[in-house]
Amino acid sequence: MSERRAQRTVDVAVIGGGVIGLGIAWAVAQSGRTVAVIDPDPAGGATFAAAGMLAAVSELHYQEEALLELMLASSNLYPGFIDSLAPDSYLTGYQRTRTLNVGADAADRQALADLRGVQVVNGLGVEAITVRAARVLEPLLSPQISGAFVVEQDHQVDPRRLTECIQLELARHGQDAVIRVQASGLLHENSADASSRVTGVALFDGSTVTATEVVVANGLGAAALGGLPEHLNLPLRPVYGDILRLRVPEHLQPLLTCTVRGLVHGVPVYLVPRTDGTLVIGATQREDGSGVVSAGGVYQLLRDAQVLLPAVSELELIETTARARPGTPDNAPLLGRVGGADGDISGLIVATGFFRHGVLLTPVAAEHCLQLIEGIADDRWRAFRPDRFSSRAPASVSLKGGHS
Amino acid sequence: MSERRAQRTVDVAVIGGGVIGLGIAWAVAQSGRTVAVIDPDPAGGATFAAAGMLAAVSELHYQEEALLELMLASSNLYPGFIDSLAPDSYLTGYQRTRTLNVGADAADRQALADLRGVQVVNGLGVEAITVRAARVLEPLLSPQISGAFVVEQDHQVDPRRLTECIQLELARHGQDAVIRVQASGLLHENSADASSRVTGVALFDGSTVTATEVVVANGLGAAALGGLPEHLNLPLRPVYGDILRLRVPEHLQPLLTCTVRGLVHGVPVYLVPRTDGTLVIGATQREDGSGVVSAGGVYQLLRDAQVLLPAVSELELIETTARARPGTPDNAPLLGRVGGADGDISGLIVATGFFRHGVLLTPVAAEHCLQLIEGIADDRWRAFRPDRFSSRAPASVSLKGGHS
Repeated sequence: MSERRAQRTVDVAVIGGGVIGLGIAWAVAQSGRTVAVIDPDPAGGATFAAAGMLAAVSELHYQEEALLELMLASSNLYPGFIDSLAPDSYLTGYQRTRTLNVGADAADRQALADLRGVQVVNGLGVEAITVRAARVLEPLLSPQISGAFVVEQDHQVDPRRLTECIQLELARHGQDAVIRVQASGLLHENSADASSRVTGVALFDGSTVTATEVVVANGLGAAALGGLPEHLNLPLRPVYGDILRLRVPEHLQPLLTCTVRGLVHGVPVYLVPRTDGTLVIGATQREDGSGVVSAGGVYQLLRDAQVLLPAVSELELIETTARARPGTPDNAPLLGRVGGADGDISGLIVATGFFRHGVLLTPVAAEHCLQLIEGIADDRWRAFRPDRFSSRAPASVSLKGGHS
Repeated sequence: MSERRAQRTVDVAVIGGGVIGLGIAWAVAQSGRTVAVIDPDPAGGATFAAAGMLAAVSELHYQEEALLELMLASSNLYPGFIDSLAPDSYLTGYQRTRTLNVGADAADRQALADLRGVQVVNGLGVEAITVRAARVLEPLLSPQISGAFVVEQDHQVDPRRLTECIQLELARHGQDAVIRVQASGLLHENSADASSRVTGVALFDGSTVTATEVVVANGLGAAALGGLPEHLNLPLRPVYGDILRLRVPEHLQPLLTCTVRGLVHGVPVYLVPRTDGTLVIGATQREDGSGVVSAGGVYQLLRDAQVLLPAVSELELIETTARARPGTPDNAPLLGRVGGADGDISGLIVATGFFRHGVLLTPVAAEHCLQLIEGIADDRWRAFRPDRFSSRAPASVSLKGGHS
């Protein structure tokens, strides 16, 4: 075709407009750099489904202490992150209300008590309370629950409103920041060498975005991107989840005043009350390869939610959603630069694999990516480097002239 | 306002474009008369939700033998009704496959066996079969069911496709038949006397439709219509129901080959397989005044459906719908002319209150209304006259000249 392809130039190109990509773009924009987010459907993937629990403490799993540190750091960054976005945190749905972890049967209570042991060892504040005390906090909880644990430090945000705010703020910063096209691959200084300096992004509409730094933040799509270094293995797998949205009728409001995370006969269920009078119930974890809403998943969520909160049966079911989260072998993100033959590959940063923690980890991912862009050394998050599952980079290819 | 109000003239005006109103309009159009259907959202009410079971036999309730006769008559009219509409019955989703009634526990089996007693006394064909035989017919049925009964005579139709076909055929008959405006009331020969001859319909956009006969077929909306005879009591009440639509994945097709009606610990649940690979699961009956999808209703349907057919958990949930059906005190329709002081009021026919049976009863309602319009005497359906709950008509008002 004779038509000239469109080309843009920005300081930083972010592939992927989920909460992670948008959060990074916002940090970049605030630093005075120009930024473009490349996504055909911003905030339409896992972000669209996410309940938005900011549960660094409650989400602690055994032997995931490195991840805990990352989550706590991000949790601490959250108030500042929200302040940077909105004059009133209400606009983002950010609420610093507590989280109540409740067990349905005796074994569930014991599992939560055991977890509390690990949480306390890690210096985290978790208070065991009686069922009676839990029902003072949340009167509609079933009297049949076996026990409850309060975590004052675990809060919530509304991912849909949060990402809406970021997009509005990016626009207000004078940046026509979001390009609604799918990225096809990375562009390199030496087009024959996928380990050479990254210089931009090619898009499926034939246009290109030239950038000093490219951030790969498109979740499960990251591994399918063209032009990744050949030795880089991004072991992402889809972990599907069903999530429900329900409307609380007038006479039942407030249904809950804080997030309730339950363990019901060994299966987790979360109830997250929004300020708009809706309730989010999540979330199943399925690795069955099916990205559609599962009747069995919806059934399980409604069943288990009613065990904890019988009034759920009286709510209006307004939305059922299924999405895939990008899982990794160690449940930790793929975050940082990628090693090449001669040190890290210039111009390339990866930020994906956030699994269940994308919303919580957005501020720390944004901060860390900006530090990498600014060349500030920060070794705290070395354990999350995206090349930790990769073979060693091959020896530098001998560049044959004329390709740079 | 100086603008002249639009006015149309037809032979017959039908208020309400649900399956009943459209079916009546189709019979009228075939008789060579002009017809207009007045509805802001045709086929958008109970018809939109309906599963479309044509279950005259299975729907028999104790002491509702008069209704049974009406249902059987309509069931017999169905093949001809479908033939009149579509060269291929597939287009309407009409399927003459059997219905299998199954019980979950011993009490459910007994209830179905007791009902079979009444059915057989009424000359209906219901065959008790073993669970093993039921699972030969439908291999995915749970081996835990307690018993099964085959009704060869109960079939199904797809109400959405059926009403789509009727609207297409009305258009093909050269009639711009559907007026997408809400009716406000009846027009009378004597505008001061709501028991005088009905001459047309007033619409909320200010226009009018003049007609020789007006059929009131707008379901629950009928009682709220202006200009009804004052002595006419239409005791309609909304009976809400939740209904689910699910997609059967390739590897589970065919999930069922016929309609399965279950009784699960005393609660009915219906599973209706469509030729397009979807499954309809219905239907709750709620009189809680809530027209929105109930989380408890969805839960109950998924729970009970899985008891009969465990593979339901593997389906995709694609739609949850709630609608109100127009219930009456005796569960029978309000169908026929309305008595006035001097015999039946001319120009007025009522066809509403079809409750759970609107789809099944459409052909007989259409036939009966056309007979009334044509002045053919048929006393078979006298028991369903719409004025059976009404006080006697007042003595004829003395007409003061100049109003006709």
